[in-house]
Amino acid sequence: MAETAPALLVVSAHAGDFVWRAGGAIAAATMRGERATVVCLSYGERGESASQWLAGKDLDEIKATRRGEAEAAASALGADIVFLDLGDYPLRESPEAVAALVDVYRRVQPTVVLTHPLADPYNGDHPAAARMALEARVLAQAIGVANSDGTFPTKDEIIGAPPVFFFEPHQPEQSDFKPNVLLDITDAFPLKRAAMECLPAQKHMWSYYTDLAIRRGVQVKRNAGPNLGLAHDTMGEAYMRYFPQVTGLLE
Amino acid sequence: MAETAPALLVVSAHAGDFVWRAGGAIAAATMRGERATVVCLSYGERGESASQWLAGKDLDEIKATRRGEAEAAASALGADIVFLDLGDYPLRESPEAVAALVDVYRRVQPTVVLTHPLADPYNGDHPAAARMALEARVLAQAIGVANSDGTFPTKDEIIGAPPVFFFEPHQPEQSDFKPNVLLDITDAFPLKRAAMECLPAQKHMWSYYTDLAIRRGVQVKRNAGPNLGLAHDTMGEAYMRYFPQVTGLLE
Amino acid sequence: MAETAPALLVVSAHAGDFVWRAGGAIAAATMRGERATVVCLSYGERGESASQWLAGKDLDEIKATRRGEAEAAASALGADIVFLDLGDYPLRESPEAVAALVDVYRRVQPTVVLTHPLADPYNGDHPAAARMALEARVLAQAIGVANSDGTFPTKDEIIGAPPVFFFEPHQPEQSDFKPNVLLDITDAFPLKRAAMECLPAQKHMWSYYTDLAIRRGVQVKRNAGPNLGLAHDTMGEAYMRYFPQVTGLLE
Amino acid sequence: MAETAPALLVVSAHAGDFVWRAGGAIAAATMRGERATVVCLSYGERGESASQWLAGKDLDEIKATRRGEAEAAASALGADIVFLDLGDYPLRESPEAVAALVDVYRRVQPTVVLTHPLADPYNGDHPAAARMALEARVLAQAIGVANSDGTFPTKDEIIGAPPVFFFEPHQPEQSDFKPNVLLDITDAFPLKRAAMECLPAQKHMWSYYTDLAIRRGVQVKRNAGPNLGLAHDTMGEAYMRYFPQVTGLLE
Amino acid sequence: MAETAPALLVVSAHAGDFVWRAGGAIAAATMRGERATVVCLSYGERGESASQWLAGKDLDEIKATRRGEAEAAASALGADIVFLDLGDYPLRESPEAVAALVDVYRRVQPTVVLTHPLADPYNGDHPAAARMALEARVLAQAIGVANSDGTFPTKDEIIGAPPVFFFEPHQPEQSDFKPNVLLDITDAFPLKRAAMECLPAQKHMWSYYTDLAIRRGVQVKRNAGPNLGLAHDTMGEAYMRYFPQVTGLLE
Amino acid sequence: MAETAPALLVVSAHAGDFVWRAGGAIAAATMRGERATVVCLSYGERGESASQWLAGKDLDEIKATRRGEAEAAASALGADIVFLDLGDYPLRESPEAVAALVDVYRRVQPTVVLTHPLADPYNGDHPAAARMALEARVLAQAIGVANSDGTFPTKDEIIGAPPVFFFEPHQPEQSDFKPNVLLDITDAFPLKRAAMECLPAQKHMWSYYTDLAIRRGVQVKRNAGPNLGLAHDTMGEAYMRYFPQVTGLLE
Repeated sequence: MAETAPALLVVSAHAGDFVWRAGGAIAAATMRGERATVVCLSYGERGESASQWLAGKDLDEIKATRRGEAEAAASALGADIVFLDLGDYPLRESPEAVAALVDVYRRVQPTVVLTHPLADPYNGDHPAAARMALEARVLAQAIGVANSDGTFPTKDEIIGAPPVFFFEPHQPEQSDFKPNVLLDITDAFPLKRAAMECLPAQKHMWSYYTDLAIRRGVQVKRNAGPNLGLAHDTMGEAYMRYFPQVTGLLE
Repeated sequence: MAETAPALLVVSAHAGDFVWRAGGAIAAATMRGERATVVCLSYGERGESASQWLAGKDLDEIKATRRGEAEAAASALGADIVFLDLGDYPLRESPEAVAALVDVYRRVQPTVVLTHPLADPYNGDHPAAARMALEARVLAQAIGVANSDGTFPTKDEIIGAPPVFFFEPHQPEQSDFKPNVLLDITDAFPLKRAAMECLPAQKHMWSYYTDLAIRRGVQVKRNAGPNLGLAHDTMGEAYMRYFPQVTGLLE
Repeated sequence: MAETAPALLVVSAHAGDFVWRAGGAIAAATMRGERATVVCLSYGERGESASQWLAGKDLDEIKATRRGEAEAAASALGADIVFLDLGDYPLRESPEAVAALVDVYRRVQPTVVLTHPLADPYNGDHPAAARMALEARVLAQAIGVANSDGTFPTKDEIIGAPPVFFFEPHQPEQSDFKPNVLLDITDAFPLKRAAMECLPAQKHMWSYYTDLAIRRGVQVKRNAGPNLGLAHDTMGEAYMRYFPQVTGLLE
Repeated sequence: MAETAPALLVVSAHAGDFVWRAGGAIAAATMRGERATVVCLSYGERGESASQWLAGKDLDEIKATRRGEAEAAASALGADIVFLDLGDYPLRESPEAVAALVDVYRRVQPTVVLTHPLADPYNGDHPAAARMALEARVLAQAIGVANSDGTFPTKDEIIGAPPVFFFEPHQPEQSDFKPNVLLDITDAFPLKRAAMECLPAQKHMWSYYTDLAIRRGVQVKRNAGPNLGLAHDTMGEAYMRYFPQVTGLLE
Repeated sequence: MAETAPALLVVSAHAGDFVWRAGGAIAAATMRGERATVVCLSYGERGESASQWLAGKDLDEIKATRRGEAEAAASALGADIVFLDLGDYPLRESPEAVAALVDVYRRVQPTVVLTHPLADPYNGDHPAAARMALEARVLAQAIGVANSDGTFPTKDEIIGAPPVFFFEPHQPEQSDFKPNVLLDITDAFPLKRAAMECLPAQKHMWSYYTDLAIRRGVQVKRNAGPNLGLAHDTMGEAYMRYFPQVTGLLE
Repeated sequence: MAETAPALLVVSAHAGDFVWRAGGAIAAATMRGERATVVCLSYGERGESASQWLAGKDLDEIKATRRGEAEAAASALGADIVFLDLGDYPLRESPEAVAALVDVYRRVQPTVVLTHPLADPYNGDHPAAARMALEARVLAQAIGVANSDGTFPTKDEIIGAPPVFFFEPHQPEQSDFKPNVLLDITDAFPLKRAAMECLPAQKHMWSYYTDLAIRRGVQVKRNAGPNLGLAHDTMGEAYMRYFPQVTGLLE
């Protein structure tokens, strides 16, 4: 896959997830000039929009609002965004949804995939998104699996086996999330912060996820060098690699 | 640690372990012009030299033979080698042994550390080696921990926090060894083979570990690209990263 | 169940799986004069036939080819074979498929069941096959669960609670496969090899799985006797027992 | 044990650990009028005092400084404090150290015990402290185990089986720390902050652990009620209960 | 949720499960004057009524018998009971079943939920019940998720986040059941015994579950006080808390 | 090892453990005419003799009493018994104790080994016994490891690699004890009961462990046949195999 142009694919259960959890990785990629594509499987219209429901908004209004916010956030990060509008709470797995994702994989030809971890006792949509993202990734590699329009892919249209990284859930320990990759997002953090600020309904999350970036940044430093005092200027995001890293260099 | 010259430190319970389990990584490092140092905590004189005991050799003869073979193998890999002669079967942990390892860490200033995994139901020396390697790595970072001669280290003498990779045990599943790094050692394999051939008493292991390198090489390919047919020309070694990877790039 | 004639049932997601992974156990059973039945849930026509798709074959041709190869391999092993043709990539679980498997269980009256392990990050069809095999095994025990034709079973038609053994996946550690049974297949290996050679499209796998049998054979020896030198003439297959072993004798 | 007066015992590897990790629980206890006793097994003089070593202080000066700070912090929390001065980096387990802890248990008669979790890849002193705290807790229950002065305990001097809670390590996921108790420390937090401010050398930690209390406070709310918006005014500490909770009421 | 009246909700796969596994907790709640509601997802008509099938009863007769027994048992425990009649062996998950459970949650407003654990190799209906109970619990919290009649809930109709306790499966170790709560049911046991005796077809279970209560009672004592001799008069039930305990008091 | 006469070795931390936990397996072996040897590492004089301490007995009296009881129980089971008198509470691991065990292994030439599991939060002596039993088992296999009198073993004196089974701890789930072998001890139970009755100070345990044998017996049946009703006449003991089973027959 060395000859392939880098391309990041982010599979997000709801419209906001990719911002809080992977905004740094996305911004870092686009700042390097790479393509990044976000797929929102739903808008999070039922499960993550309580304040709008309380304010008397109806389903279509809520979906439109969340779509607009997500588009703005993706734009701030330099990423493309696609909405599959599969519904949330619950996000139901289906052959059709997986087939739509297979098409996305073959179009995007991702070299890296980000999605939710496979466990989350607080929100079943997140593991459902991960399961579909993983199933589609395997199917998209097979030349015998048709596209959703019934045509078969050419040898160039099938994908390789891109690495998958799970991004951080809201309550990591309860979701069996043990980070094995700490990403330094110091340079990308201003874009992540800008993207967070595209989501005004969750203003209290801005500081929460800024604090988390500091905390993970401290761990970046603790895992990278001598512990002569903790500096607070490194920002980080935590990831959990699903497949073994393939490398020519231990470092 | 960006400014530090790469340096590989391998902590091996017995004289032969580093060859079978990490020879590819060592050769790859030295082929890039990097320093590599092997520390053998024992010669494996009691537990891994059955054929010599059966042949009537005494302890000193066996140790001398194994030392010579290990020196030859290290030389074939381009690595330095140090022997602590702590005794095997059992390899006993002690403050003095750890202190000797702290000295080695501070002298070598490793940027990468390889050692045994923490569990092995078949050989308690391997986890004992790992525990000492890990304890010494932490102590060597502390400016308040004296060298074994009682002097205190300077700020330059303490080490950073190098990543640690566990190499593959003989029965990986029984030792809770789940590889999360697959190292491509195709180019380095001829040197690994040459090092293996420095150990004539275990000739039947040459093909065993060549087969293992093929098997891990297949996994290198399976985790890196589309599965259009398995080629057998990639050689691999499996590792298990103990601390999270710190990186600026997901790949 | 002491009075029951031994009968082996192998539930295989795709047409080739039973050969590579359980051919030794099957041959050993038939060499003892026992019945063995293989159920292929699919032909592996989409996910495991890349070379044929690349050669321009169509779906029916590929299924026919793989069916023929599987029949030849089963014959070489001395086993019966049944095809449920449920489709692969993905193999979808359904009440109808499970009901068909319940019928098979009641007809075969297995005293031992072999199937895939419950996790495989590389191929979702394998765990899906295992889940259906396990669900059908429980349902087939219940006198209140009808056959697929709507009739109810007699007391003699329901099955006991046969032990289940998971066979080895392609990447065992990644699939949480920790063997707790090592089967000596030395005598059965020639039949396994003959069955492998019935699958000409995967010729490179012949040596791969021969090497694996050697590797597992070494572990057979390591877990069974003193380590005075490893012999390479014992061949093995690894299994993971799902339920506790029931026995009158610890050995 | 219903008739026993509540008494909290905190076993801390180094002089500062109890403040950052359990200050809220300690202050909450003393605010309820209960006794709280902190045992510092070492001062953290070698491993956690890098800035003082860099400033040229000697061992006795560092120990005195850390002792003074820890006394001030304990006082701010309303707790007694005991120093065993066992040395750190490494904190070595010994029969004598365990015997000294047995005496403390029998004198304090704790109804609740707090200590470090059993794993910490970054600092071996923490698990060593936990192992000794747990071993002493079992020995102190046995009427046949003598006090350190050789006398045997009376029936009233042995202790019951107090519950043990592990407090949060610096990198929880890496230390297999999965919280199963979230403690609301909102009212106690001002005392915890005051205690933190008794440790001037680690000023950067004040905000770090304040942020952590906010984060755990969010989880307190997420696990206790409907998610209509996260308030940031609840402060929390996370704990991991080692033994099953014994209760007459599920809640 | 402090102002909410205590209300216990028990989600049971089959008609008898709640008696054997949670009868003590239910009786303890109603003896305190609290409401308790049992939801039986099925009658256990196919998988747990072998003796009736063998006696020639038909499906409707068996369901009626089991319904009557379950009503009597619930009455003996002082609990309300609801039957969803979803069928067993297998109990199939469906959106409709989950929606019916969401309605139950919103009507009952539970402050505590009891259900099966998430793994059971012997009976897939138990984990299926647990998954539906957990999914419905999350959905019932969301103001954007409609009731099954299409109306939307008011702010008062949605539920909080009640703690969930898994009750003990038949073979706990095989079901990854590690109790972290031991409930003293000594005072409630006579009611549990009375409820068990409402299930005459399983008379041999009366002594089996009485013995289990003794065994768990011994553990209640072992985890609560000094071990000066085991008394056999404490009766217990074991539970596994799924979410962290939220508390203001460590005890 | 096929030519070796069966010989059972049981390594027990305290004088009574082998009776409650493995009495059935021992009796079953001796009833088959096989040799069985019990090694008691301590008498359990401090940690498991509370009633005698309360009665004012001194250390030597208690040890003598427990030795006598253990001898009687071993005799009832038809087993030899050896006492190493290493002291309990705590049982300390030492090179000398391991060397004494190596001698026992080489003298007994066990074909099966039983000992405690590796975790027990309630009693650290049990894992300590297991660790020494496992270490000695590995050392006794090595021809280069001397006997405790300094002589080297002959090829016939070293042992093979006997399978190891952990017996059931008092609180199995808390000790990570997941049985993978259920032993039918129906025929051997009368001897086990007789051995239990040799321990009069723990009379309340007789019924407790009889109930446990019934409970494990029910599981023997549940794992071996159709569930048409549970009979209570099968008695069982649960074990956890540490190494993979080596076999020529899946059953």
